[in-house]
Amino acid sequence: MHLILTLITSSRRLKVLHSNSMSQSKGTVVLAYSGGLDTSCILVWLKEQGYEVIAYLANVGQEEDFEAAQKKAHALGAKKVFIEDLRKEFVEEFIWPGVQANAIYEDRYLLGTSLARPCIARGQVKIAKQEGAQFVSHGATGKGNDQIRFELTCYALYPDVKIISPWRLPEFFNRFLGRNDLMEYAKNHGIPVPVTPKSPWSMDANLMHISYESGILENPKNQAPAGMYQMTTDPDKAPNTPDTLEIEFKNGVPVKVTNIHDKTTCDSALELFLYLNKIGGKHGVGRIDIIENRFIGMKSRGIYETPGGTILFHAHMDIETFTMDKEVRKIKQSLSLKFSEQLYNGFWDSPECEFVRHCINKSQEYVQGKVQLSVYKGNVYILGRESPSSLYNRDLVSMNVQGDYDPCDAGGFIKINAVRLREHHRLQSKKDCKA
Amino acid sequence: MHLILTLITSSRRLKVLHSNSMSQSKGTVVLAYSGGLDTSCILVWLKEQGYEVIAYLANVGQEEDFEAAQKKAHALGAKKVFIEDLRKEFVEEFIWPGVQANAIYEDRYLLGTSLARPCIARGQVKIAKQEGAQFVSHGATGKGNDQIRFELTCYALYPDVKIISPWRLPEFFNRFLGRNDLMEYAKNHGIPVPVTPKSPWSMDANLMHISYESGILENPKNQAPAGMYQMTTDPDKAPNTPDTLEIEFKNGVPVKVTNIHDKTTCDSALELFLYLNKIGGKHGVGRIDIIENRFIGMKSRGIYETPGGTILFHAHMDIETFTMDKEVRKIKQSLSLKFSEQLYNGFWDSPECEFVRHCINKSQEYVQGKVQLSVYKGNVYILGRESPSSLYNRDLVSMNVQGDYDPCDAGGFIKINAVRLREHHRLQSKKDCKA
Amino acid sequence: MHLILTLITSSRRLKVLHSNSMSQSKGTVVLAYSGGLDTSCILVWLKEQGYEVIAYLANVGQEEDFEAAQKKAHALGAKKVFIEDLRKEFVEEFIWPGVQANAIYEDRYLLGTSLARPCIARGQVKIAKQEGAQFVSHGATGKGNDQIRFELTCYALYPDVKIISPWRLPEFFNRFLGRNDLMEYAKNHGIPVPVTPKSPWSMDANLMHISYESGILENPKNQAPAGMYQMTTDPDKAPNTPDTLEIEFKNGVPVKVTNIHDKTTCDSALELFLYLNKIGGKHGVGRIDIIENRFIGMKSRGIYETPGGTILFHAHMDIETFTMDKEVRKIKQSLSLKFSEQLYNGFWDSPECEFVRHCINKSQEYVQGKVQLSVYKGNVYILGRESPSSLYNRDLVSMNVQGDYDPCDAGGFIKINAVRLREHHRLQSKKDCKA
Amino acid sequence: MHLILTLITSSRRLKVLHSNSMSQSKGTVVLAYSGGLDTSCILVWLKEQGYEVIAYLANVGQEEDFEAAQKKAHALGAKKVFIEDLRKEFVEEFIWPGVQANAIYEDRYLLGTSLARPCIARGQVKIAKQEGAQFVSHGATGKGNDQIRFELTCYALYPDVKIISPWRLPEFFNRFLGRNDLMEYAKNHGIPVPVTPKSPWSMDANLMHISYESGILENPKNQAPAGMYQMTTDPDKAPNTPDTLEIEFKNGVPVKVTNIHDKTTCDSALELFLYLNKIGGKHGVGRIDIIENRFIGMKSRGIYETPGGTILFHAHMDIETFTMDKEVRKIKQSLSLKFSEQLYNGFWDSPECEFVRHCINKSQEYVQGKVQLSVYKGNVYILGRESPSSLYNRDLVSMNVQGDYDPCDAGGFIKINAVRLREHHRLQSKKDCKA
Repeated sequence: MHLILTLITSSRRLKVLHSNSMSQSKGTVVLAYSGGLDTSCILVWLKEQGYEVIAYLANVGQEEDFEAAQKKAHALGAKKVFIEDLRKEFVEEFIWPGVQANAIYEDRYLLGTSLARPCIARGQVKIAKQEGAQFVSHGATGKGNDQIRFELTCYALYPDVKIISPWRLPEFFNRFLGRNDLMEYAKNHGIPVPVTPKSPWSMDANLMHISYESGILENPKNQAPAGMYQMTTDPDKAPNTPDTLEIEFKNGVPVKVTNIHDKTTCDSALELFLYLNKIGGKHGVGRIDIIENRFIGMKSRGIYETPGGTILFHAHMDIETFTMDKEVRKIKQSLSLKFSEQLYNGFWDSPECEFVRHCINKSQEYVQGKVQLSVYKGNVYILGRESPSSLYNRDLVSMNVQGDYDPCDAGGFIKINAVRLREHHRLQSKKDCKA
Repeated sequence: MHLILTLITSSRRLKVLHSNSMSQSKGTVVLAYSGGLDTSCILVWLKEQGYEVIAYLANVGQEEDFEAAQKKAHALGAKKVFIEDLRKEFVEEFIWPGVQANAIYEDRYLLGTSLARPCIARGQVKIAKQEGAQFVSHGATGKGNDQIRFELTCYALYPDVKIISPWRLPEFFNRFLGRNDLMEYAKNHGIPVPVTPKSPWSMDANLMHISYESGILENPKNQAPAGMYQMTTDPDKAPNTPDTLEIEFKNGVPVKVTNIHDKTTCDSALELFLYLNKIGGKHGVGRIDIIENRFIGMKSRGIYETPGGTILFHAHMDIETFTMDKEVRKIKQSLSLKFSEQLYNGFWDSPECEFVRHCINKSQEYVQGKVQLSVYKGNVYILGRESPSSLYNRDLVSMNVQGDYDPCDAGGFIKINAVRLREHHRLQSKKDCKA
Repeated sequence: MHLILTLITSSRRLKVLHSNSMSQSKGTVVLAYSGGLDTSCILVWLKEQGYEVIAYLANVGQEEDFEAAQKKAHALGAKKVFIEDLRKEFVEEFIWPGVQANAIYEDRYLLGTSLARPCIARGQVKIAKQEGAQFVSHGATGKGNDQIRFELTCYALYPDVKIISPWRLPEFFNRFLGRNDLMEYAKNHGIPVPVTPKSPWSMDANLMHISYESGILENPKNQAPAGMYQMTTDPDKAPNTPDTLEIEFKNGVPVKVTNIHDKTTCDSALELFLYLNKIGGKHGVGRIDIIENRFIGMKSRGIYETPGGTILFHAHMDIETFTMDKEVRKIKQSLSLKFSEQLYNGFWDSPECEFVRHCINKSQEYVQGKVQLSVYKGNVYILGRESPSSLYNRDLVSMNVQGDYDPCDAGGFIKINAVRLREHHRLQSKKDCKA
Repeated sequence: MHLILTLITSSRRLKVLHSNSMSQSKGTVVLAYSGGLDTSCILVWLKEQGYEVIAYLANVGQEEDFEAAQKKAHALGAKKVFIEDLRKEFVEEFIWPGVQANAIYEDRYLLGTSLARPCIARGQVKIAKQEGAQFVSHGATGKGNDQIRFELTCYALYPDVKIISPWRLPEFFNRFLGRNDLMEYAKNHGIPVPVTPKSPWSMDANLMHISYESGILENPKNQAPAGMYQMTTDPDKAPNTPDTLEIEFKNGVPVKVTNIHDKTTCDSALELFLYLNKIGGKHGVGRIDIIENRFIGMKSRGIYETPGGTILFHAHMDIETFTMDKEVRKIKQSLSLKFSEQLYNGFWDSPECEFVRHCINKSQEYVQGKVQLSVYKGNVYILGRESPSSLYNRDLVSMNVQGDYDPCDAGGFIKINAVRLREHHRLQSKKDCKA
């Protein structure tokens, strides 16, 4: 039943265009196609190498003219073009587990790209299997994390797949040493060339975040240029009035957002997340400029804006601490550290990540309730919280109520905790005496 | 030599006042005295119980009329009064290790009270030993963390000490059931009574932070009242122009702060930290409203403002990631988690905390360089960084330079990382076939 | 359905004896009764203090004349006596999770007492609730772990219970300063006195292990005396022929044991465990002499013999590594460390232990197969293993088969792993040059 | 001073033989030469490819006719031959840190090969730098761990080195598909061919252990054949009388071994370790048969015998627990897990391993004292221990002495630890009521 529904949904989502196939090809490649210069050149180049090419373009919320991209791929000779709206499953199956985990890489990065990559690769593999393609290809560079995230998911879900990674093939990267070579190639092969000049950095966008890196940002001392950010308002241009939200969680996942002032309400996953993006973006929330450690062992500089994800990060952290036992929290925190690293390194589709996701999900059983917060000038301020399953006990903690608690017990607790410390001191003194 | 210097310093710092001692006392108590109603009553009550009382008041940066407090203690019958300026050692010996560690409790609390407590208790124990006092006492409640932090340090440094904790003694807490009882007692014993009404919450202040809890804040849904904060400007009243700072680190510790605009420079620990407090406070940096798990097993609600500490937290995190190897960082992070918990729970003076501090300090050997950041409307924005010992290699990471790096290697790296994932899939498929 | 079955089983198991109840008592106490001198005196003493006493004696496999103990308790004035055979649930619900976890405390102790304590306390609490008793009591000392394990389970399952721990009550421990005082009291109160002299150490036995401590063993340099061990043959008297077993696991739990030589087979949990005890005991397996860290912060010396548990520890470790993914194993290992500590410290009935047990159980999904091993002269030698869900791939690992594996990939893998190391060296050399 | 001594020592150790060098070579390769068929063929093959070859043979305690190996290498055309006795530094600089750490991989493997590899590679790199060789080479296969351990150390210490790994080069591995091809090649190139038939498994030996794998052992169910082990007596042929030893530790490292019976004493590192090997070997100590997870992601089956290392593992564990604070122990244990993994994966010469070694060494400051143990029929039995810096306090732990300890404190300790558990139960009951 569930399966059927899914199929219907996805047949509605998929817009497939057939084109003439070549004879005697080396085989069929499903290419992760973005519509941009790089993957357009790769599409043509793959055909040049003797492959039939199926273009695959996933909509994970990036700004894109999907219709135009589809036409373009078709015009460049793609045998078929699949454009798939994965936004709902991106939010529900990838971002939500990230929210449950409070996933964060190296204490700062909310993993927007890392979450999208396995979602896209999974879609691409599905098409490759469905179309009987032995090959998949992508335009990720040879120094980054994305090649790894992309390929590990492909190998995990389709172990016999062959991967063509042009930017790691000498015959490709020696031919296209810079953007000019690509432009030249494009002109010679009827590939439409972008009319606007390329920004002096590279970008990756999806509905969770935009990342900026490379180019002028490679100098770690260079400040990010004004006007770079696209999802968030500059804090100094942000409104002078905060928005106050109430976010309701069930099972560690947001199920409803209410704007206290204007009474706006969202309760479906995608809509809710987009609304948080809107509010966060309006108030300039979620910008970071960091140095990070790539899986591949080099440090890189990345700038990110994650408006809605940042709001959820703070809200979930708060409701979790309110409802989760202290010691469970500690264990869950260590699992989250592992999850974040697995995610960053591209191991979403690994036995260890499946295991950790299972455990984290279990930990969220009672993470429910409402968090009130205000969003203002780049900040998320937690204002209050309530929950039917809170472990917070006002009578227990109150300074004015003794309740069931006997303060004398604390004395014994401390004395017993001091046993070790006093023994240690006894020994140290003995040593000091000797020395 | 060093010892002598210290003694001179501390004799300069200490302002001792003698008073008449009682005959046939139960012994001498060094009381952690704050000058407020509670510890004033405790002082008198202890005398009533037959102890001689030495008042000990540490200056860790709280707003206080130390002269008046001294006179008051004397007037109440303290045998001696010690007022000690510990601000420099608080910053250098307690806050700095916290900065090196990126110490943070439960992902949010920067541990301002936890850092001050062992500093104060150490001072008090020193006096107790010096004065031959067998007892120490304090005014911490029986439900909180401070009693533990205070007493564990005392037991660790002075294993034979006897601790009098009035709020855990039935003869005390049954006599003083509320503030009114204290007021009554004060009136009857010539203890000056505060003229301003008590705020409907309790506060703990030192130069690192102010914490607010209890009273109306005990309802976790109640928003913190306007006008409560004392170290930080409300973000909506904060200046419309950012301050841009450059903070220089050596050995993981800030050694210089420069205000890029007005060229203000600080390079001694205390001065530098106070300056960061000033800037952070002016821009409303470092407010949090959290639920936290006390050591004692109950959840409480705490509100904190940590202006300078928050700036340093972000700046240190940045320079550390810039200069520290990725895998060292991971291990150091797990040590920091332990350190933060030890600190929060009161185990500063424990063998495990000494061990962890040693290891963390070792990890900071090459954590040096300069971080540029702007402080604005409650936010700290990292703008750039530079370091003589950075492991960031621009040529290595650049998209435009191949350098020493062979992109083909990444293919092998990924394939080998996929070995396990493909095996797992192989097995899963076998199972699925069977089922 | 399940519930009903359980009730029938337990009504069959329980042998209840009623006695006359006192009027105007302080209330009813369920006492963990062992039949020995200590708890017999406690029983009488509790009655003396004005309580009605219900004796509770759990059979967790210790050598005991349960009938005699029952009569004795009755004779001493117990209102009721419950004797319950918990051996099956001890194995299935406590030892099995320990086996799944490879639970081991401080790398050596297999936690035999720690596993039994919550099993017994759970039974006792069930009776207390059923009988409407507000009190429970036990004979554990005030310096050990057992008091904690016992009481934490009681508080967790019956939060309003009052616990009477005589060895922590001054009115009791000051009255009974040594064994002689107990003997004297026994004689005066008609309590039968043991005729055999007490061994110069104390013992705790259940079907998993026997522990020995105290008395002459308190000197950590004293070698354990000959003849002390009761479950295991001295290795020098053990047979000169090994026993060879095959143990089959499902879900990380043993489901069948076969003796290869004599074809003995066991496949129910209790029977299987007792058989492993027999074989392990015969060959002197599972003796350790250790120093351990009690929860209470002191070091103690303990000697343990755990014959069957030791065999299972080795067998399970082997089948687990054979069938579990490497990275899952690492995460599971860190969970097991936590589980072992929770268990040792008495937190079986805590949210964190429930969480960890859930996660560990999940990790055991594919831990199945057969392990062959021989047991000989105190050793367990793993001989071989097989499994339908092994991740071991002989073709992949074979030196003689290339298979799907391209050795060239390893070169890329190594080069990428070396990126960091070379950068580190680059920086170190720069520093060395400068210095 | 220290440097000079070292140089003298190493010039004594090194036996260098010059041979005629070729003209117009591709460069010089330092080959890790074992004297066996494989590396002899590689030596000749490298010359064939146009390299000048320096043979490097490290003595880490393996059984080998070093003189013969040297002559053979010379005869095969090596330009120079270096034979270096690294046994002392292997023990002191590699095995000792392993002992301090209680290093063990996946709970069972004592890392004998992992410890030797960086020791050998370091020596080889030293020669390569000294001789101005740009290349190093080795005979490790493309599926194993040793290639990684070897090469990571080379890259770390000599970042510009080029590594020739013939078993990963298609031109080599496609030419030598099996042992017959090597034999054929050997005959054609005047390489002496082994006269004894090869054992149906492969072996790696050093003074710490011998490992056995491959061949008939690749079937994980096949029992290890009788007569395979070379360092240890079969337990059933082991003596019927134990040896009783006393091992003294300082700084976590053994400094003296005394045989209680015959009064044999050793106190230098190498001698002491060889003596423990002798005793352990005589009694059949330290055999394991395991499945392990290679770094490269595949499971393999390995059989190991580590006689002296196993004795030290048990003895060190005991003295460590006796002298180290409980909480320090836990942190150190987590560092050891990391260390063991780093070691196994070949990261000895990494910043993270240097950091962890530093921390572990720090933790050993007070790990000193004497452990008495008996070695018998494959077992190591700890009998007793003593230490000037033990944290074991007999009076504190004794059941017969109250000492400074107030048992009432334990009641408070337990009650406070139960606060969380009771709250959890309170919430669970509420839920159960609702449901």
